[in-house]
Amino acid sequence: MERPIGIFDSGVGGLTVAAAIKKVLPGESFIYFGDTQHAPYGDKSGETITRYSENITRFLLSQNCKAIVIACNSASAVAYSTLVQKFPQTVILNVIDPVVEFVATVTRGKVGIIATRATIQSGIYEKKLLQLNPKMEVVSAATPLLAPLIEEGFMHTDISQGAIREYLDDSKFNGLSTLILGCTHYPLIEREIQHFFGEKVSVVDSPELVARKLEKTLAEKNLKNPATVADYRFYLSEKTTAFSSVAKMFFGEGINLTEQRI
Amino acid sequence: MERPIGIFDSGVGGLTVAAAIKKVLPGESFIYFGDTQHAPYGDKSGETITRYSENITRFLLSQNCKAIVIACNSASAVAYSTLVQKFPQTVILNVIDPVVEFVATVTRGKVGIIATRATIQSGIYEKKLLQLNPKMEVVSAATPLLAPLIEEGFMHTDISQGAIREYLDDSKFNGLSTLILGCTHYPLIEREIQHFFGEKVSVVDSPELVARKLEKTLAEKNLKNPATVADYRFYLSEKTTAFSSVAKMFFGEGINLTEQRI
Repeated sequence: MERPIGIFDSGVGGLTVAAAIKKVLPGESFIYFGDTQHAPYGDKSGETITRYSENITRFLLSQNCKAIVIACNSASAVAYSTLVQKFPQTVILNVIDPVVEFVATVTRGKVGIIATRATIQSGIYEKKLLQLNPKMEVVSAATPLLAPLIEEGFMHTDISQGAIREYLDDSKFNGLSTLILGCTHYPLIEREIQHFFGEKVSVVDSPELVARKLEKTLAEKNLKNPATVADYRFYLSEKTTAFSSVAKMFFGEGINLTEQRI
Repeated sequence: MERPIGIFDSGVGGLTVAAAIKKVLPGESFIYFGDTQHAPYGDKSGETITRYSENITRFLLSQNCKAIVIACNSASAVAYSTLVQKFPQTVILNVIDPVVEFVATVTRGKVGIIATRATIQSGIYEKKLLQLNPKMEVVSAATPLLAPLIEEGFMHTDISQGAIREYLDDSKFNGLSTLILGCTHYPLIEREIQHFFGEKVSVVDSPELVARKLEKTLAEKNLKNPATVADYRFYLSEKTTAFSSVAKMFFGEGINLTEQRI
């Protein structure tokens, strides 16, 4: 087998990124690590999230991964720069930069961000958006129940709709033109969020933008795999029923799933 | 200060038990440990929950606690017997036995249990209820989103009501006479659950039953504290805003809260 890509998240959210990578780069194999034992990351401290992210990256590199995708916004927000510093030889992508670059160059008008507490408290989206476009109007809100709600499989129910309304029915979102889904879990309820705002708001998520950025980066570094058949492996720090069911939804019944402590 | 009682849970849920202990035993000091870094416990394996519970118990004993209250149903279900075995000199109470004894002796008719996945999968309530009353009809359901929803402060909203309906509107609960809240978080939404079922179902929770059992046990072992002023200390493996706000709701603004890794 050619060298795989390493992808990690606190749980099921990063599977949305893995699915986009499979679609955009069908020849690339990957190893996915879901840190379900410590999920959700979104309400943990930067120090703790960074410690977990380092341990997972070491594990993925021990499996001969040629690139690491941090498929979690909380970890991208607080651990990315430490990982880049500690593993300078490794290609490391986060899920924030591709979205920021896209939104800052393509969209106009007021931009909103919803994400976990860790991501919102880091202020990273605002900082990066304003670096690229200092005149941009940016508002944000922490929406901490959305990730566990999705981890538990409550997409497309009264509960997800109630939580969306509870969080988003806020005057700060008045006149919004773009909403960034700043958590890789949220694409799983993207239709409901879009429905809440209606067509006047453009909802932007990271999976496909990250997959395209990965494709470009691998090509630049001559790391692309010419194969057409890929192999997918999943490691979980703790097996959960929710993870298995979302992983099967994206990758079929016969997935290869192993428990692995970090 | 007299020797305190040690109380622990994965997060805010055990505060309902701590509040009942304060009410029933106003002279007793306690040290509360909330393992927020690893919350929620309910979707974790028995092995993992037991490891955390042992580490917390060691910490509480290092603080000179005279008794340990496992104020978490998931830990009571899977870790209690290991803790009793490893700390044979220590008075250890769980939150399941007092409820089982009460329900098996006092109630008639069909009994339902709602709890986390870990507690439901252990089958411990059914086993213990049927030991005391082999003819009892018992049904149960895992309701895994309720604890994170409460950890996030969504009591008394569309979301808690939607989740209650989603979980409890199930034919297996037809003809129920008693419902056991098998998670120490659930008393925080007890009114809503009672409202869903109406007056025909008697909803039973653990905090007061556990506090009374503790009072009885301390008296039997001559461990009761004759003081009338008590001291409360709170340790968290990771500070969270949700914990602070629920703890302040129960114990006032001036609470003593320390971060402590285990």
